[in-house]
Amino acid sequence: MGTAMPFLLGVDLGGTSVKLGICDGRGRVRDSRSIPTRARSGPRAVVADIVDAARGLQGFDSIRACGIGAPGPLDVRRTRILVAPNLGWKNVPLPRLLGIGLGRRVRLENDANCAAYAEWTVGAGKGTRSLALYTLGTGVGGGLILDGRLWTGASGGAAEFGHVQVDPRGPACACGRRGCLEAFASAPAVTRAAGARSAVEAFRSRSPRARMAVEGAVAALGAAIAGVFNVLQPERFVISGGMAAAGAGFLARVRRAARDRVFEAYRKKLVIVRGTLGDKAGWIGAALLAAKSR
Amino acid sequence: MGTAMPFLLGVDLGGTSVKLGICDGRGRVRDSRSIPTRARSGPRAVVADIVDAARGLQGFDSIRACGIGAPGPLDVRRTRILVAPNLGWKNVPLPRLLGIGLGRRVRLENDANCAAYAEWTVGAGKGTRSLALYTLGTGVGGGLILDGRLWTGASGGAAEFGHVQVDPRGPACACGRRGCLEAFASAPAVTRAAGARSAVEAFRSRSPRARMAVEGAVAALGAAIAGVFNVLQPERFVISGGMAAAGAGFLARVRRAARDRVFEAYRKKLVIVRGTLGDKAGWIGAALLAAKSR
Repeated sequence: MGTAMPFLLGVDLGGTSVKLGICDGRGRVRDSRSIPTRARSGPRAVVADIVDAARGLQGFDSIRACGIGAPGPLDVRRTRILVAPNLGWKNVPLPRLLGIGLGRRVRLENDANCAAYAEWTVGAGKGTRSLALYTLGTGVGGGLILDGRLWTGASGGAAEFGHVQVDPRGPACACGRRGCLEAFASAPAVTRAAGARSAVEAFRSRSPRARMAVEGAVAALGAAIAGVFNVLQPERFVISGGMAAAGAGFLARVRRAARDRVFEAYRKKLVIVRGTLGDKAGWIGAALLAAKSR
Repeated sequence: MGTAMPFLLGVDLGGTSVKLGICDGRGRVRDSRSIPTRARSGPRAVVADIVDAARGLQGFDSIRACGIGAPGPLDVRRTRILVAPNLGWKNVPLPRLLGIGLGRRVRLENDANCAAYAEWTVGAGKGTRSLALYTLGTGVGGGLILDGRLWTGASGGAAEFGHVQVDPRGPACACGRRGCLEAFASAPAVTRAAGARSAVEAFRSRSPRARMAVEGAVAALGAAIAGVFNVLQPERFVISGGMAAAGAGFLARVRRAARDRVFEAYRKKLVIVRGTLGDKAGWIGAALLAAKSR
């Protein structure tokens, strides 16, 4: 273990905010911050903001690897964002732009894959060999660890859990299809279906409409998790993102909904827990993956 | 490579018939046969039938490994069948019973996993690193190869593709739930929905009812494949079992249905082919897996 440059920089590029920070090789946070994403100003402006913010972080002078997590389909070689609907971006060579700004090599990975890697390495999935993570936020993302490695699929875009269809007659999804998990269980989907101003309000409300919206999210997430369990039987499911903490009893209800939908013989093997890294999972994972790929 | 005992014995235990045969380490068939499954006579009678049939196969005297594929949830250590609804069996130590009869160690694996391993090693999936196989027959089974290995999940029961729910309001399934792929796309499901006497008749019929039944199977299979693609992005999907050859144009329609349901950016990466080993995939895979585990 080197001690001269022990730190890692991680960045999590979201539609609303960029979270970034510095941690050590075990994911222990040295410093972190969150800045707004000026997506409309374009990639170069956002990258400039990230570089400015990073330079102000404690430990920046002794980082040995940099990673960034970003939404949307990436190219297989992880050199660019192909499409990011939440940012309004297409075909952006993000690691190159950020690398120039920081004067260092930067590793790009899908944001939910980063979160899965962080929770698996130093969070709620520690000690397992396989894990499926759902991030419930503005969108619904996913990440997979199989046999002790991040699984990105033959084309680099695996674990698109948000766009697995759970009901062919379900609500329209932003992706253009219908009844995807995201159309039921993202924060905006629950908020809209509940007629509320926020997901938290939707969870707290006692109105029949809000209850139905939350029940729809619970059932969809239960069905989606049961589907992935039937396909993969990972050791553990981790629920991450803002929605994971939104409603009391939410996780318990999701557990029941999922267990009802898997074979009785395997029911006891279905383990669903909440992530422990909160909204830092994305950038910590990007940092740890960057350290690993050096 | 040993040449003194170059052959492998494989057995595929189905609800209607037992298929078994002898092949070499490359899956080249030396001899094979099919006998009826006397499931109601109990495991010992069926095992005695298998032993009799196996002893009559050419090359039996020089086999170096034996494997059997069987339906239903198996225990993680592959020492017994836990439940096999199609056979009416529970908790059967099949490899031990067959091992005593044959005087050799026998390896047990899920039947669809065997078929997936065979198609991947010497059939339609040769040369890939990841593959998802669907067997469409009396039931709908599945098998997964990930990163060049059979993936059975943390509890040994992964790739239950037949019981992934594709429509929460779909027809009742034999498993007790609703809208599973099997409830749409198994041969009995299509036959019943079409009001036909066989799946082949259902595919050939021009009646509106038969067309709707086939369309239902196509849509369900397309949705199920798209779901697995969104989760895993395997290099190739292989369709196996009697139904794969049932209707002209079936596979082309399934391809279209699946492609409509995945992200455009990845659509070209979705490859769906028919298995090349026919109804021998199960026993050949059981034989090859047994050789590997020695």
